[in-house]
Amino acid sequence: MSNACQHLAQVFAQDIPLSQVMGVQVTHWSNTELQLTFPLQPNINHQASMFGGSMYCAAVLAGWGWLHLRLKEEGIETTHIVVQSGQIDYPRPIFHNSIISVCSSPEDRLWQRFLNTYRKHGKARIELVSRVLTENNEDGAVLTGQFVLHQ
Amino acid sequence: MSNACQHLAQVFAQDIPLSQVMGVQVTHWSNTELQLTFPLQPNINHQASMFGGSMYCAAVLAGWGWLHLRLKEEGIETTHIVVQSGQIDYPRPIFHNSIISVCSSPEDRLWQRFLNTYRKHGKARIELVSRVLTENNEDGAVLTGQFVLHQ
Repeated sequence: MSNACQHLAQVFAQDIPLSQVMGVQVTHWSNTELQLTFPLQPNINHQASMFGGSMYCAAVLAGWGWLHLRLKEEGIETTHIVVQSGQIDYPRPIFHNSIISVCSSPEDRLWQRFLNTYRKHGKARIELVSRVLTENNEDGAVLTGQFVLHQ
Repeated sequence: MSNACQHLAQVFAQDIPLSQVMGVQVTHWSNTELQLTFPLQPNINHQASMFGGSMYCAAVLAGWGWLHLRLKEEGIETTHIVVQSGQIDYPRPIFHNSIISVCSSPEDRLWQRFLNTYRKHGKARIELVSRVLTENNEDGAVLTGQFVLHQ
């Protein structure tokens, strides 16, 4: 596990107890993508698929974690990140174990604008898209979240 | 606790394990409103307020539970209810214990249309609004969810 993955796993363990009962594992990080993995059992629902609330949590943790790690690479060490709003769609149920949620980079010009706004005003907002994947790597849930970073 | 509250508490306990580690309690039901209550501690985040993912879960459980109980009153005993999409906004952080989420009735004409569509086609969709409240009964989170009922 990379240092970045270990670091984020510690942040989740220390700061967000629900992530631990969901069984989060930080399984992959590069600066274009963060991947988390979850077991089905603690996140199951009445239809033996992943609970919609767990899918939201898996997606929002991927978005939050991506932003935290990407900012760390820029020398901005902060957990002052909150989700301000989110739109989630559930195109397919998820039935397998080892469920992956991923968040990828936004366009570089949006990232640069976000950094510039934060450095100038001490506060900035960015939209991130996270996905929770089915066994066939299709979208089970897609979350478009607005994240706010503040000093 | 009313029979309806006991019944829903059992459904949550049996079918959605995450609701149990969140500490859900079914605290009030009339056919216009369902109220759930959650402790802060298992749902806390890095800012000592309620985790955004927990707020989403608290709100979606209120919507799902409202629909389940309201359908039961109509003689439709089913858990074949899924959330299809949701839009959540977080106007204020929530810091207190005994956090309440509520879901109230939609307009009666929308409810009747939903029932008619379900009875005719075996499938119907309805939009429900749930709120998670601050200590001062202001909106901490507002979820507008699309719920689908199918046979």
